Amino acid sequence: MIKAGIVGGTGYTGVELLRLLAQHPRVEITAITSRKEAGMPVAEMFPTLRGRVDLAFSTPEAAPLKACDVVFFATPNGVAMQQARELLEAGVRVIDLAADFRIQDVAEWSKWYGMEHACPDLVAEAVYGLPEVNRDRIRGARLIANPGCYPTAVQLGFLPLLEAGVVDTGWLVADCKSGVSGAGRKAETHILYAEVTDSFKAYAVPGHRHWPEIRQGLARMAGQPVGLTFVPHLTPMIRGIHATLYARLTRDVDLQALFEQRYAQEPFVDVLPAKAHPETRSVRASNLCRIAVHRPQGGDTVVVLSVIDNLVKGASGQAVQNMNILFDLPETLGLEALPVSP
Amino acid sequence: MIKAGIVGGTGYTGVELLRLLAQHPRVEITAITSRKEAGMPVAEMFPTLRGRVDLAFSTPEAAPLKACDVVFFATPNGVAMQQARELLEAGVRVIDLAADFRIQDVAEWSKWYGMEHACPDLVAEAVYGLPEVNRDRIRGARLIANPGCYPTAVQLGFLPLLEAGVVDTGWLVADCKSGVSGAGRKAETHILYAEVTDSFKAYAVPGHRHWPEIRQGLARMAGQPVGLTFVPHLTPMIRGIHATLYARLTRDVDLQALFEQRYAQEPFVDVLPAKAHPETRSVRASNLCRIAVHRPQGGDTVVVLSVIDNLVKGASGQAVQNMNILFDLPETLGLEALPVSP
Amino acid sequence: MIKAGIVGGTGYTGVELLRLLAQHPRVEITAITSRKEAGMPVAEMFPTLRGRVDLAFSTPEAAPLKACDVVFFATPNGVAMQQARELLEAGVRVIDLAADFRIQDVAEWSKWYGMEHACPDLVAEAVYGLPEVNRDRIRGARLIANPGCYPTAVQLGFLPLLEAGVVDTGWLVADCKSGVSGAGRKAETHILYAEVTDSFKAYAVPGHRHWPEIRQGLARMAGQPVGLTFVPHLTPMIRGIHATLYARLTRDVDLQALFEQRYAQEPFVDVLPAKAHPETRSVRASNLCRIAVHRPQGGDTVVVLSVIDNLVKGASGQAVQNMNILFDLPETLGLEALPVSP
Amino acid sequence: MIKAGIVGGTGYTGVELLRLLAQHPRVEITAITSRKEAGMPVAEMFPTLRGRVDLAFSTPEAAPLKACDVVFFATPNGVAMQQARELLEAGVRVIDLAADFRIQDVAEWSKWYGMEHACPDLVAEAVYGLPEVNRDRIRGARLIANPGCYPTAVQLGFLPLLEAGVVDTGWLVADCKSGVSGAGRKAETHILYAEVTDSFKAYAVPGHRHWPEIRQGLARMAGQPVGLTFVPHLTPMIRGIHATLYARLTRDVDLQALFEQRYAQEPFVDVLPAKAHPETRSVRASNLCRIAVHRPQGGDTVVVLSVIDNLVKGASGQAVQNMNILFDLPETLGLEALPVSP
Repeated sequence: MIKAGIVGGTGYTGVELLRLLAQHPRVEITAITSRKEAGMPVAEMFPTLRGRVDLAFSTPEAAPLKACDVVFFATPNGVAMQQARELLEAGVRVIDLAADFRIQDVAEWSKWYGMEHACPDLVAEAVYGLPEVNRDRIRGARLIANPGCYPTAVQLGFLPLLEAGVVDTGWLVADCKSGVSGAGRKAETHILYAEVTDSFKAYAVPGHRHWPEIRQGLARMAGQPVGLTFVPHLTPMIRGIHATLYARLTRDVDLQALFEQRYAQEPFVDVLPAKAHPETRSVRASNLCRIAVHRPQGGDTVVVLSVIDNLVKGASGQAVQNMNILFDLPETLGLEALPVSP
Repeated sequence: MIKAGIVGGTGYTGVELLRLLAQHPRVEITAITSRKEAGMPVAEMFPTLRGRVDLAFSTPEAAPLKACDVVFFATPNGVAMQQARELLEAGVRVIDLAADFRIQDVAEWSKWYGMEHACPDLVAEAVYGLPEVNRDRIRGARLIANPGCYPTAVQLGFLPLLEAGVVDTGWLVADCKSGVSGAGRKAETHILYAEVTDSFKAYAVPGHRHWPEIRQGLARMAGQPVGLTFVPHLTPMIRGIHATLYARLTRDVDLQALFEQRYAQEPFVDVLPAKAHPETRSVRASNLCRIAVHRPQGGDTVVVLSVIDNLVKGASGQAVQNMNILFDLPETLGLEALPVSP
Repeated sequence: MIKAGIVGGTGYTGVELLRLLAQHPRVEITAITSRKEAGMPVAEMFPTLRGRVDLAFSTPEAAPLKACDVVFFATPNGVAMQQARELLEAGVRVIDLAADFRIQDVAEWSKWYGMEHACPDLVAEAVYGLPEVNRDRIRGARLIANPGCYPTAVQLGFLPLLEAGVVDTGWLVADCKSGVSGAGRKAETHILYAEVTDSFKAYAVPGHRHWPEIRQGLARMAGQPVGLTFVPHLTPMIRGIHATLYARLTRDVDLQALFEQRYAQEPFVDVLPAKAHPETRSVRASNLCRIAVHRPQGGDTVVVLSVIDNLVKGASGQAVQNMNILFDLPETLGLEALPVSP
Repeated sequence: MIKAGIVGGTGYTGVELLRLLAQHPRVEITAITSRKEAGMPVAEMFPTLRGRVDLAFSTPEAAPLKACDVVFFATPNGVAMQQARELLEAGVRVIDLAADFRIQDVAEWSKWYGMEHACPDLVAEAVYGLPEVNRDRIRGARLIANPGCYPTAVQLGFLPLLEAGVVDTGWLVADCKSGVSGAGRKAETHILYAEVTDSFKAYAVPGHRHWPEIRQGLARMAGQPVGLTFVPHLTPMIRGIHATLYARLTRDVDLQALFEQRYAQEPFVDVLPAKAHPETRSVRASNLCRIAVHRPQGGDTVVVLSVIDNLVKGASGQAVQNMNILFDLPETLGLEALPVSP
């Protein structure tokens, strides 16, 4: 059994990770930390886990993290970079669900995240955990930067187009819609039920932290810098991201075939038939990304629709997928459950 | 008092029109028709109107429509065009909330709506009822084509840019999100509560009937044909449209000033301060359109955020606004109620 | 014009009061306080009020409260009792939307609210502002204790039964469901969107502060103490309270006639026809209470269904109704707007 | 492998049954019928099943139902009773998720369901499939009447009280709240998104079909007829039933111990600690029933809170549980997945 530890398990990615790991046939959760809730049984905070997770939260100091095979950080940005080195030196694999190791340009990272980076050398070593792009590098990695939720949906949607070099990379548009759980489980007024229900809004149009992460990923696929406009929106639903992507075709191509071939071997990317429209609920609680590609009225604009569950493929599920790859387990192990709908 | 009749009052635009007209100080509702519900008191179907609307639905034949000053059609497409001529000849003003008179190119209309047009000559006469563009023509009109919900939000968002000629008209993108009431009050599986709640999807990406309507309007503003990609999405909320609009700037301009000046005199268009993000709930149950304009990272892409209540400014409220203009009433009469939020 | 002040206008009852007073033809809002937000324009926090409310929040010290004709307290419990005396002595009428003056038994109040009462003599003077019961006493009052949301829905539902003495007062059950706005606009985890959406739960079953308030009111109606079980539930909706009330009939009576007669003259209580089921949305954004009364299978149990909008008839609307009575205005003035549905 | 057939798989209980059976390690789905959708691949109607369920809907005639080990009826009431005998005679076990075999008094059944019963003798043979009450009889049965959703939540909540004889059986109250999926996947106006969202209402207060079913079950537990008032409510959520149960204690008892002991061996009933309030989301997508028991203010009224997922323990999950019992499999097989929350 793989001994897994979780640092910071009181948020939504934390409890989702608990749900997935508690059901994983090859994992034993041996430690979960929360300085604030130390001593509280996990199942008291999250009654869904009653009878299945017997652990209590412990302080980071008291938790046997160094004895783990893998430690997941489900913490705010800036925490993993303080603790990763010590764990890595103890031989523990580290998967960070936050943003500390996602952006290779440390100065760019500091600008967007408003702090100095504690270990630029580890940034250089870290592997960006998008298996559909980096599977081979993930296999041998010590430290995984688990991608952000928007970046996962957007990169998987643009990937076949950019790899094939069939769109103008100078003007890409990613219009993205996220469920409210993407904002985390924080006591903040703007995500109260009565604030976001029956309403819809864009936010962070002047600049969002996922913009540099997405740009970095798209540039790697394209082999050159890209121009990207990224607009996130807050949607009155719990889970789900819907990325609507726009690009201008530079040459004629069979888009449906392009997408189907690119993802033919991918266990978690499902290309829908032509003319389809994926719903976010069709991937709810699963690690799937479903994609449809359109060319409205046969014009030169390609529209890609890409949906994921932000807490699964956009966070904790992808982290487990990365763990499976790291430990040479079948990539889908513990992630086979069908989506829940309605 | 203006005598108003409503044809087809059992849908959401119908009941919203009833709500607005029943509270309008210069209107008396004298007839409301529904062949299917003839005889049923309106307040029995819509309990919100109990004690305030005493009318019962009547058959079209029995209703004193020709004695009205104005008749609103809140019917499916294809109904108003069958009945308008007779009413117009009787001296009644007609406001069609459906699509029968919106598109000047009758062949284009037939293609998208799948039927022959019954009165092309009236299409030519009809005035497109977007007051911010057509106020003077509306004043003298007999027949008003009330704009669609998406077209209202999109046209008001692009208007200042196109009139000023500051964007590339060849590649406009309108990514639009609508509440479910926009799909009408029809017994259809795909808009059941358990189908659309906690989910999000695009629809009609290959082609939506509002696309030609929007293109027609934008082309008039631009003075030339435009290239438009329009993607509508179904959003788990009752009311509201959020249009996120993308265009490429062709020259430098003070966008905030441009929008503020264009709409300075408009009672129902509110340009938010720079960096703002309008929420659909900020216009709920009101006739307002709130707009913000952004230029992310100072690049050459302009992003406009435009929100309306699809049942008010996107349908029944705009119809009342048009009626006020037609009858030389203050344009805001009966439409002053503040938005309801939360 | 009546000069009105609001103490503590940043919560949901505060903004709803602003919405109602800003549209009231005989009121001028002259002061609104929030120590925390002093200096911020009200319309910046609440964009629905843009262009209609020009006031900024001010500190309590700077606000011209003593120059007001009436001051509303939309504050947490325990604030109004500290400031009421000074205002009353300055000749200002005070309407407290919180609980400070609702319970005549000061010891009972202290037990449930966890603090000493600052002015028991004013409690004795205060009039409980349920117009359907206390209209005459409200007319001459200086200090109004505006009822709680649950207490309004429950008392109006039981009132005809208790006044007529037709039910066993020893075992009354009030099973109540509230929208989330009833919990206020506070940054607390348990009312986050992702916590309460698509879920339903009871809370405070061992004891809720509205229980003594309701018991006090029912006892007055019955002329004797009553046995009451009160269970509140949190419902995934923004606004609305639905009280489902159970009592055992002690003698045969025409329930429909009893309710209709009791409320025949009440402008804000609407008794539905026999066999009806009121929806909370049928009163959304209005000051109405809609009630239906049932006797399932002709047995000896009476079931009353009573719905209100918790922010209007359950709080700010009732406060305005009380103000109208206090100042001899038509009781419905400024409260005539039709409910908003869908 | 157990060969399973499903008759009528296009509703919510049908697709939920598909989700559960497709993941069950000992089941092979060999037939699914829908006369209307014959020929359509199941995964085309329900994209959540893409890549996992390869079956297409077939007509009842073409489906190899008699070759199945078990056939589930996820049909409207009145269908199973027409087809059960033929299947039973072919040696197939039958589990009816509809109401055809739930009520032993056939005249009572006919009164509530508005049709003659096709096979009263099979009603007499059928076993009511509530494992917590009838496990032993289920084991040997040929024909299972799977309980209704409300009846499951209510019976499990009252069970310990009635078996122990500690409450007045003459006046039981069950105030129940159901998510909208409980109304089925039918194209009907009253369950449209825009009709039920942000609203709450009771329905069928004069009489609901689950009332006789619940009464029958409670009477068996009590050993005598019971007086029951049952009020169902429609709640704006997809899944979940919350039953709030009221009864009058006739003698003193340790309620917490009573419930914990009764359900100590039950794998799917979880008694929460004292003072707890179960949320419906805590059982979402799982076969669990979570229960809390209260005695407010130490009075003589007991309040039980009982929650289930109406599509799982209230329908398809319980059907699979019954199948496991029938075929001597571990009772929890295929039903171990943790609830999904948020």
